[in-house]
Amino acid sequence: MAVRAAVAGASGYAGGELLRLLLAHPEVEIGALTGNTNAGQRLGTLQPHLLPLADRVLDPTVPDVLAGHDVVFLALPHGQSAAVAEQLGPDVLVVDMGADFRLEDAADWETYYGSPHAGTWPYGLPELPGARAALEGSKRIAVPGCYPTAVSLAFFPAYAAALAEPEAVVVAASGTSGAGKAPKPHLLGSEVMGSMSPYGVGGVHRHTPEMIQNLSAAAAEPVSVSFTPTLAPMPRGILATCSAKAKPGVTAESLRAAYAKAFADEPFVHLLPEGQWPATASVHGSNAVQVQVAYDAAAGRIIAIAAIDNLTKGTAGGAVQSMNLALGLDETLGLTTIGVAP
Amino acid sequence: MAVRAAVAGASGYAGGELLRLLLAHPEVEIGALTGNTNAGQRLGTLQPHLLPLADRVLDPTVPDVLAGHDVVFLALPHGQSAAVAEQLGPDVLVVDMGADFRLEDAADWETYYGSPHAGTWPYGLPELPGARAALEGSKRIAVPGCYPTAVSLAFFPAYAAALAEPEAVVVAASGTSGAGKAPKPHLLGSEVMGSMSPYGVGGVHRHTPEMIQNLSAAAAEPVSVSFTPTLAPMPRGILATCSAKAKPGVTAESLRAAYAKAFADEPFVHLLPEGQWPATASVHGSNAVQVQVAYDAAAGRIIAIAAIDNLTKGTAGGAVQSMNLALGLDETLGLTTIGVAP
Amino acid sequence: MAVRAAVAGASGYAGGELLRLLLAHPEVEIGALTGNTNAGQRLGTLQPHLLPLADRVLDPTVPDVLAGHDVVFLALPHGQSAAVAEQLGPDVLVVDMGADFRLEDAADWETYYGSPHAGTWPYGLPELPGARAALEGSKRIAVPGCYPTAVSLAFFPAYAAALAEPEAVVVAASGTSGAGKAPKPHLLGSEVMGSMSPYGVGGVHRHTPEMIQNLSAAAAEPVSVSFTPTLAPMPRGILATCSAKAKPGVTAESLRAAYAKAFADEPFVHLLPEGQWPATASVHGSNAVQVQVAYDAAAGRIIAIAAIDNLTKGTAGGAVQSMNLALGLDETLGLTTIGVAP
Amino acid sequence: MAVRAAVAGASGYAGGELLRLLLAHPEVEIGALTGNTNAGQRLGTLQPHLLPLADRVLDPTVPDVLAGHDVVFLALPHGQSAAVAEQLGPDVLVVDMGADFRLEDAADWETYYGSPHAGTWPYGLPELPGARAALEGSKRIAVPGCYPTAVSLAFFPAYAAALAEPEAVVVAASGTSGAGKAPKPHLLGSEVMGSMSPYGVGGVHRHTPEMIQNLSAAAAEPVSVSFTPTLAPMPRGILATCSAKAKPGVTAESLRAAYAKAFADEPFVHLLPEGQWPATASVHGSNAVQVQVAYDAAAGRIIAIAAIDNLTKGTAGGAVQSMNLALGLDETLGLTTIGVAP
Repeated sequence: MAVRAAVAGASGYAGGELLRLLLAHPEVEIGALTGNTNAGQRLGTLQPHLLPLADRVLDPTVPDVLAGHDVVFLALPHGQSAAVAEQLGPDVLVVDMGADFRLEDAADWETYYGSPHAGTWPYGLPELPGARAALEGSKRIAVPGCYPTAVSLAFFPAYAAALAEPEAVVVAASGTSGAGKAPKPHLLGSEVMGSMSPYGVGGVHRHTPEMIQNLSAAAAEPVSVSFTPTLAPMPRGILATCSAKAKPGVTAESLRAAYAKAFADEPFVHLLPEGQWPATASVHGSNAVQVQVAYDAAAGRIIAIAAIDNLTKGTAGGAVQSMNLALGLDETLGLTTIGVAP
Repeated sequence: MAVRAAVAGASGYAGGELLRLLLAHPEVEIGALTGNTNAGQRLGTLQPHLLPLADRVLDPTVPDVLAGHDVVFLALPHGQSAAVAEQLGPDVLVVDMGADFRLEDAADWETYYGSPHAGTWPYGLPELPGARAALEGSKRIAVPGCYPTAVSLAFFPAYAAALAEPEAVVVAASGTSGAGKAPKPHLLGSEVMGSMSPYGVGGVHRHTPEMIQNLSAAAAEPVSVSFTPTLAPMPRGILATCSAKAKPGVTAESLRAAYAKAFADEPFVHLLPEGQWPATASVHGSNAVQVQVAYDAAAGRIIAIAAIDNLTKGTAGGAVQSMNLALGLDETLGLTTIGVAP
Repeated sequence: MAVRAAVAGASGYAGGELLRLLLAHPEVEIGALTGNTNAGQRLGTLQPHLLPLADRVLDPTVPDVLAGHDVVFLALPHGQSAAVAEQLGPDVLVVDMGADFRLEDAADWETYYGSPHAGTWPYGLPELPGARAALEGSKRIAVPGCYPTAVSLAFFPAYAAALAEPEAVVVAASGTSGAGKAPKPHLLGSEVMGSMSPYGVGGVHRHTPEMIQNLSAAAAEPVSVSFTPTLAPMPRGILATCSAKAKPGVTAESLRAAYAKAFADEPFVHLLPEGQWPATASVHGSNAVQVQVAYDAAAGRIIAIAAIDNLTKGTAGGAVQSMNLALGLDETLGLTTIGVAP
Repeated sequence: MAVRAAVAGASGYAGGELLRLLLAHPEVEIGALTGNTNAGQRLGTLQPHLLPLADRVLDPTVPDVLAGHDVVFLALPHGQSAAVAEQLGPDVLVVDMGADFRLEDAADWETYYGSPHAGTWPYGLPELPGARAALEGSKRIAVPGCYPTAVSLAFFPAYAAALAEPEAVVVAASGTSGAGKAPKPHLLGSEVMGSMSPYGVGGVHRHTPEMIQNLSAAAAEPVSVSFTPTLAPMPRGILATCSAKAKPGVTAESLRAAYAKAFADEPFVHLLPEGQWPATASVHGSNAVQVQVAYDAAAGRIIAIAAIDNLTKGTAGGAVQSMNLALGLDETLGLTTIGVAP
């Protein structure tokens, strides 16, 4: 019996990637596809890479269209998910790919988003301690942000094993699809090709409190995160470099052992062999996470680095992985660890 | 009962893409993997995107290693396939991803490759008239070149329907993976990013006789092809622009009708709706072919354009598609028409 | 005594490139800079690479602002130049970087632009036969389109020497800056990186009649041009591949001799040594044109290829070169043949 | 009276960029050009963007060839500069673009390079406190590494003003030209396009002691630097993100004031207006440095970011700037702050 899935916000990059994955999911049947300003348009025009859906026409994002599905994915601007979820009722699995239900602290939400907090849903990063249990059987899932996915996976083992001091410094490079499909001058190909540039420097990026939440939970103490995102000249991928002072007694060996243990049974997270470093190209289009960790003895610091595909593991793949858990399916169904490279 | 497949030349781009596809093929079990200078190395180092095979170590390309498989794929330098195939015997399906058995005319081979002609095998481009019948049940397959795949699919309908004069002009842009993984200065990232450049101009590219062979067969008359390949700043993809004078009486409608008919039942070739043009990004990592055709009334010419992924439909995907036919499997098994975009 | 220059449309790519060149021009002093929707903004925000002008604020494009200069460059949407030029009076050198005054045939203009024809000004491609004489001392200059610059320079020698049949086939790849700075979804970095795609296929691109005009003049007979433009994943550069049947008796030697003669005294056009082919990276940021030509004996065709920087020689550099001629300055002042590579 | 300059190592990226700049330098005449394995080749083949030098043929790097110049630039593999400099004698200005004479501490050199220390020459980063005086009139110059140039300029003001704690964390992204022109598989275009990846993680990159040297000198106390370099999919450019805990009492205002003061009279370093961030595209091909600084109040950290062109300010531009000082010329001769963008 197939799981019938609707996608609200099917014309953007997150929606398109989700459809790419759902088309290959053996248990999912694609139902309603909706858009906002793009309602009425052919998907073949909006997402020309999704040939099997080329003749589908987007419906408007209204309750009648989204009703009658087992799962509804929301790829909506923030602030809109709560109302839609309420209309769908408590028995439908709602997977929110936006930010609305990620944060536990209402004050954090209000500081970073400037609107009332909608609530907190089980957090769709199964690899975090305790996360799987909360997702299994859940009817609500908050899919993590793309940067927090990469950063949390790169760095939680160091905090969970009490190896890192609670002041994290993170510099991450993202492909341009992370900035979405709305055309803005600084996102033009002419502007981004050949250019690296930072943005949201100084703690103002909205993904910051989400990283703090995850690393603090792992550390069982408050962790500060100084986060600098940069825009890289590539369509996809996040490379997150995470650094913190090592606690006394940490060695390269104890560090590596903690990471090996954290990811031993994880289907998607691969701690690379020593000497090999993550590359975003290697995880292009896959749900895999490549992680490596090093101890900088001279500086006394831990450096952990993760590469993900921001649209797959960082958004739509993470959503499908969590959906699988919520529905009691094999967590890896419809997902791959094989990248499309070169 | 799984089909057991060996890959000779698993460290290059063609071999890597083939493994990516075979890993997702429901009927194939991956057997021996061999390399030449890379024998003894971990695949995780050579192909870091193929995480499920990371711990496999390449064997040398010798008969004992390749024996005992149902299918052997050869991704070898040209001139080496005949000897390997002979050793494997007539009952093993041998799929040659190199050039050795593509050409029917021995003189063409000798002109373009400067060595004795090894022979001609059934040609692995099922969409060409008559090709499927020759592939079904065959124990030998010559996988087409990447450029001839794009050009033949873009232009054979115009010739098969006798709409085009027999003098074709082709300009094609290829991603850099088409030039292989051997490091050469002009293929450095520093050189290719931001640059378009032609090569092999004036009829000297080795794929030229293969295009002539395919279009002449479709036209049932000799067709000349003036082919200009260009190197484009992208890792994958071919965009082939094909032009010829229209025969008297051709109209935009008759042209479109011929293309619609040619591809009506093809699972991988999509004639785009009028007004939409192919883009290599849309077929990235997929076996799909996007085709569009226009009639330039002022110049009296037909322009047909195809986009493929040079490594998938242009090499490894075409190989798998033909293997499926040779083994009596569903032609589309293990292949997708969904691109990884953006 | 410096030449005082105003730039109307200083916020776009053409205007920005022009300012980059004028800043390095030993005889030019930069005067008024105007914008339309960007009037009132700092140039440091709009053109962050022009550090010496960072604190300049754009004025509105009105007659009072543009008055009192020796030269006024117009980088305006088409249809607006005539009115501005009239206000400036006949003694001011007006260099129109738009399309309004390029075409000689009013019917062509109306067909391709759908508005009344404004007139014809001396055409700013000095390398064309007779063009320099028309530019020297002129008070009006129509700067050619970027594609026609590349195509005309690549192919006029074959026509001027009566070596090519009058049916040209042109496929050209352009960097994305050719499409301008107005943000549109298909020009997003996420869309263009990794993608080659055609547009305006079938003779509908507005630069077509301009190519026909130039090649027909060189040939002294009507030449048809079947032109296919493609968008390439790079910010700058045009690679134009031009093909035509050779007239009887043409040889590789006669072809090369014609090209050598055509460009012998040209400061910016370099016929490359045999065996070397143009690359857009080599002319990045320069006014140089790299040209190479080959005779495809099997197909009986001439293939001529040019690489230019679409913003420099294709727009702003061509404008400065023509301005130099009009003002009686050394034609090469402020321009370079040295590319910024890699 | 022109300065006659020789370039040893003219076929690589550093040598090519140097020639690009020297060709535009009003006081320099280009003399001998030498290569190692490329001796005897035309520069037009090796550096096709340097059209004015296309017909020059490389000489071997031997004393007779390099003799008789006012300045000799060395772009040689490390370990070779001392012997060449000795042969040239004390009256010739020798500008070493390699690493040999950058470090003051012989033990650092031996640790990172594994060979005897050749010595220490005046350090060619004029913007550092006291550096100009040492360069003026000097006959020996050690050009800084590309990463240390970006990092030192981004971060020395924070240390010179005693605002930052002495534990720096640096993550920098570099274009691929920083890795040189020797073809290696991981530098192929197919590998680097679409990919971000780190290397030399954990304090092992050879530029680390140079950063420590510069920041420690500015701080007048030992500063540790934990440095992570990453390879970015672009040919040129470095974006360096530098972070350190703020000392007690630091405010956004005091931080900004320190930076404004440090760069007030610098011709090449531009502290951007608040809210604008550096982009490597903006300094492409120029000697400019774009710097911005922020105070992350929540984390109590300073984040300073610089963008440079690794080949210009990071190598050849820095060399020319220092040569100008050594020769008593205007420091900015032959250099620009105008980038080639987009």
